Amino acid sequence: MKIAQVAPLWEQVPPPSYGGIELVVSRLTDELVRRGHDVTLFASGDSQTLADLKAVYPRALRLDPNVKDYGVYETLELSQVYQNAAEFDIIHSHVGISALPLASLVSTPTVHTLHGKFNSDNRNVFSHHQKQAYVSISNAQRQIDLNYVGTVYNGINPADYPFVAKPEEPPYLAFLGRFSPEKGPQHAIAIAKKTGWRLKMAGKVDLVDSKFFEQEIAPQIDGQQIEYLGEINHAEKAELLGNATITLFPISWSEPFGLVMIESMATGTPVIALNLGSVPEVIAQGVTGMVCQSYDEMAATIKSALELSRQTCREYVENNFSVSQMVNGYEAVYEKIIQDRIHSNGRVRVGNIRF
Amino acid sequence: MKIAQVAPLWEQVPPPSYGGIELVVSRLTDELVRRGHDVTLFASGDSQTLADLKAVYPRALRLDPNVKDYGVYETLELSQVYQNAAEFDIIHSHVGISALPLASLVSTPTVHTLHGKFNSDNRNVFSHHQKQAYVSISNAQRQIDLNYVGTVYNGINPADYPFVAKPEEPPYLAFLGRFSPEKGPQHAIAIAKKTGWRLKMAGKVDLVDSKFFEQEIAPQIDGQQIEYLGEINHAEKAELLGNATITLFPISWSEPFGLVMIESMATGTPVIALNLGSVPEVIAQGVTGMVCQSYDEMAATIKSALELSRQTCREYVENNFSVSQMVNGYEAVYEKIIQDRIHSNGRVRVGNIRF
Repeated sequence: MKIAQVAPLWEQVPPPSYGGIELVVSRLTDELVRRGHDVTLFASGDSQTLADLKAVYPRALRLDPNVKDYGVYETLELSQVYQNAAEFDIIHSHVGISALPLASLVSTPTVHTLHGKFNSDNRNVFSHHQKQAYVSISNAQRQIDLNYVGTVYNGINPADYPFVAKPEEPPYLAFLGRFSPEKGPQHAIAIAKKTGWRLKMAGKVDLVDSKFFEQEIAPQIDGQQIEYLGEINHAEKAELLGNATITLFPISWSEPFGLVMIESMATGTPVIALNLGSVPEVIAQGVTGMVCQSYDEMAATIKSALELSRQTCREYVENNFSVSQMVNGYEAVYEKIIQDRIHSNGRVRVGNIRF
Repeated sequence: MKIAQVAPLWEQVPPPSYGGIELVVSRLTDELVRRGHDVTLFASGDSQTLADLKAVYPRALRLDPNVKDYGVYETLELSQVYQNAAEFDIIHSHVGISALPLASLVSTPTVHTLHGKFNSDNRNVFSHHQKQAYVSISNAQRQIDLNYVGTVYNGINPADYPFVAKPEEPPYLAFLGRFSPEKGPQHAIAIAKKTGWRLKMAGKVDLVDSKFFEQEIAPQIDGQQIEYLGEINHAEKAELLGNATITLFPISWSEPFGLVMIESMATGTPVIALNLGSVPEVIAQGVTGMVCQSYDEMAATIKSALELSRQTCREYVENNFSVSQMVNGYEAVYEKIIQDRIHSNGRVRVGNIRF
């Protein structure tokens, strides 16, 4: 199959540290190539991939101080993708709503993975493009009525996350994620303080969250009970999660997937999370973690979570959230969309009209 | 001719106060209808037009506190325009680069008026879509190599700007424009203070410019020599300019057109401007105003500008910058693009492919 993968340009593919979407795109793209597909990846020029890389811009936009207007480069990327639509059997977009009007104008089938959340603004555009093929990354994500072809959970390669049979002593709780109110680092700190547990935290602080970090997080970091490791790379991430006794996922929004949950479970570390969004689909309640109704319950349940089998956590990810399963899911989605298109049109693709 | 006009959604068409692009779109659209064309205007739902209004959103986005993400609605607007491309003989876009990839996918001819300035980001997208048909609003604007079909100067309806034969006593200088550093209100104040002239200023303060306004402008407003009238409506604008002895246009960027210059001259008031961008194309040097090389020269030349004929200023706008001339220009552009398309394709339009 000739497949175009369209990645955001903000981070490299794969991302050196934080960047959920770019990580998923990377794993998916490379595995599709390994399975024999002819894949073109549209992404920043410093991306590393087995696919044919089409670099829209030489480096990740967030690393370039000369770039003032990011949206502009997405427009350029989408121009390059959709003007060459006829070269592909399917176009798989990971970039959001700006691809939708373009997708509606070409005859090459396009599928959009919904990586984010619906809001009062973007839902108007999604609803307008209701008939487009969408993939949700959890069932909980399907808050509006669209043409969902399937749910394909994000997958990781368990080999990238060494299994840790016995967590570090003295024990600690881990928090990994962007330091924004919706990810809940403030709740992680409150849970640690309430229970007396040590807490190690890592993740980036976006400019928009710098005030939140300075006011609500920084004053509580004492380097003893509450540690902040900054923005960490993949190896450090696996180490932070693997050596933890429990990972906290104290979100305050409906997270559409939550990669950190499967990363943690892959290393053997169970997850205690608030019951929002995808959480009950990703954690096997009472087996690989605890799905709680409140932050208080999260604190209270740490004790019982200590009983959970780390080996079971690992196997659960291997059996349910591997790259291999994710790619099986997307291959099935591509096949389905192309078959549906053949049946409804009597042709595979005719290319877009250009002058 | 079946014409689609695609307006920005930030302001109503026409704008109640400031909003250069929306004013031009309004005048153009209504005059095209009066000349018998079948015009559809894509714009905010509170717009007033003789054309068939397609409302993407019920009100101007800037007036709606619920709207967080403006770009989303432009995406929705462009979906509506380009999915229905086959209904039009020509699509005339006023919204910027996001329309370019869509325009490249449909067979209906599209023309883009360049209302803004090129920068290091957007020039990449324009260059990628070099073959698209563009209209520049001044020759000075053509900073990069594109397929310019013509320059069409912005036009106003002189009847909307009552001619004032004798300016108000005591005399004053006028400044009208957004209060941002590039529009130069700080230079207008300096010129007034240097020469002892009174200065009346009006225009909006965008959120991004609020610090500039508070720090560099507000402390100098004394309500006596330096007055600030706030954001004013059309009638107040015509009055401010018409009763002024001279209008200052002390820009510090290459303004692509500068509507306020023709608005001022239409009321009879000559303009003293810095020689940047379109200025020497819009002002008849020594006849309807003074084109200066420095802010000092602007201050020094006030005396000679007092000699200029207000009647000549008025006639100059009537003869060169009326709506009627602007619409003649655009009609010629539409004809040229459609004719070129017929000759190169042997057909007028075939519609876009949709499923």
